[in-house]
Amino acid sequence: MPRIVKVGAAQSGPIQKDEGRQAVVGRLLALMKEAKARGCDLVVFTELALTTFFPRYYADDRAEMDSWFETEMPGAATRPLFEFAAGNGIGFSLGYAELTPEGRHFNTQILVDKTGAVIGKYRKVHLPGHAEHEPERTFQHLEKRYFEPGDIGFPVWRTLGGVMGMCICNDRRWPETFRVMGLQGVELVMLGYNTPSRNSLKLEESAETRMHHSRLCMQAGAYQNATWVVGVAKAGEEDGHHLIAGTCIIDPDGFVVTEAETEDDELVVYDCDLDETKFLKETTFNFEAHRRVEHYRQIADRTGAKPPLED
Amino acid sequence: MPRIVKVGAAQSGPIQKDEGRQAVVGRLLALMKEAKARGCDLVVFTELALTTFFPRYYADDRAEMDSWFETEMPGAATRPLFEFAAGNGIGFSLGYAELTPEGRHFNTQILVDKTGAVIGKYRKVHLPGHAEHEPERTFQHLEKRYFEPGDIGFPVWRTLGGVMGMCICNDRRWPETFRVMGLQGVELVMLGYNTPSRNSLKLEESAETRMHHSRLCMQAGAYQNATWVVGVAKAGEEDGHHLIAGTCIIDPDGFVVTEAETEDDELVVYDCDLDETKFLKETTFNFEAHRRVEHYRQIADRTGAKPPLED
Repeated sequence: MPRIVKVGAAQSGPIQKDEGRQAVVGRLLALMKEAKARGCDLVVFTELALTTFFPRYYADDRAEMDSWFETEMPGAATRPLFEFAAGNGIGFSLGYAELTPEGRHFNTQILVDKTGAVIGKYRKVHLPGHAEHEPERTFQHLEKRYFEPGDIGFPVWRTLGGVMGMCICNDRRWPETFRVMGLQGVELVMLGYNTPSRNSLKLEESAETRMHHSRLCMQAGAYQNATWVVGVAKAGEEDGHHLIAGTCIIDPDGFVVTEAETEDDELVVYDCDLDETKFLKETTFNFEAHRRVEHYRQIADRTGAKPPLED
Repeated sequence: MPRIVKVGAAQSGPIQKDEGRQAVVGRLLALMKEAKARGCDLVVFTELALTTFFPRYYADDRAEMDSWFETEMPGAATRPLFEFAAGNGIGFSLGYAELTPEGRHFNTQILVDKTGAVIGKYRKVHLPGHAEHEPERTFQHLEKRYFEPGDIGFPVWRTLGGVMGMCICNDRRWPETFRVMGLQGVELVMLGYNTPSRNSLKLEESAETRMHHSRLCMQAGAYQNATWVVGVAKAGEEDGHHLIAGTCIIDPDGFVVTEAETEDDELVVYDCDLDETKFLKETTFNFEAHRRVEHYRQIADRTGAKPPLED
């Protein structure tokens, strides 16, 4: 019997700074209802799906930014998503800013099963950007200021008949992200992203180039680990800053099989057959047969690049 | 001053089984002469550039295959390449089957500088295929029978004003290959490939899909390590087996900037500005700032995939 998971990749259009949680959750709920009507098993929402992409704003006092964070999940605003999941037998994955009882801040994604239970949590490992205000940038990208790096690694979970993993936004640019999940047999990776159309340090870089970078990393991660990848954007003009769209589902050969056509709230749906991951996992990417870890030590032992000395 | 290396990617058309070394070297020399005339600093030849792709043939007695190997480099047949390099101030990189004085067999690539001196040697780490005759395959791919895995790792060399690395064919499918070089600051990676147009275990896989896989891995390796990549095919119908072409040069953004148009001997030339690697190495892929090695241990510690236990 094929192991088909019908996935709804739920792109979010822009969320303006003054849009409240309740209104945003209403938009997400509308996408979940559409997903249910179309027969989805799982809806994947984007990174920081409840708010505008607040790391573009600088606050001298970081505590001022705590209003962007969730202190409980579900909380009052997000409970309708969990209730819909439980009542309708549909799973979902949601990205949000997490503030723990101990006062720690993470860029987090959760996986919720068809009973509405949180069965998995991931905290973004690769935080892009910077920690202090940098005036040379045309806009700020302060993830290193407002979050600490994820402390959970890259776990996977067995649910919906397969092996599922998550990562977030900039994580997709790092092959280590996909490989660590690949080494745990991942069959479907869910990720969300908020990716500015402009590079704040290189204005001549086009939005097309930035989309190419994004796709390239997700497609390579899919093929090289023989997994499905679901990439979900927050898109469009948000508080005067444009984000790339391009929500898509990628098969284990690294092909985009479906993608969003708009920069708005939009659901793209695909029947992901998890058994399609088998051929490559057993042949070209049979890790046991082909990997040579004796030559990979530097990947885990060395953080920065060390070029050979100049003559 | 920009650090421009004018690279000639020297695709080989097919080499039939009965074509002698002298004739093949004559073809390579013609490509080198064209490269010199076009002002190249460096010519990159393909994997196993001196012979047909002999791992497609099975021999019960492996020693029968030793005639495909070089016991010295340069040897009598290959010396004209080194003489041309030294006499004309042009470097090159050449793939060949290496048989050492100790009787060890490797799939090897060397880097020769503008004085004709061998300054670097790489031995293929990721050997694809299998070691015994497998009748279920429509043709054999016996690299694991005739070679042992490379024992040198993925070194880089400072030459031609930059940091140069090499890998071979199937190595390009493994992100670890590019990452280990990236961690040594590589700015230009040379690789050759002999890639059948058909998958011997999946005949419905198209040549276009196989080209997509090949390009995807090279483009991702380039972008994710902010390096130039020069990918050189042996192409066309060789002993009744077709090999994909697609020799190309890829920039540090992961774009193909030039590519071969034929399946024959063909030189494609590009001015690779090594300083174009700087922006990404200093920002998005500033490894020191962004990599989180505490979460990468499995990459070096675990060879095979270990999915979570079934419920």
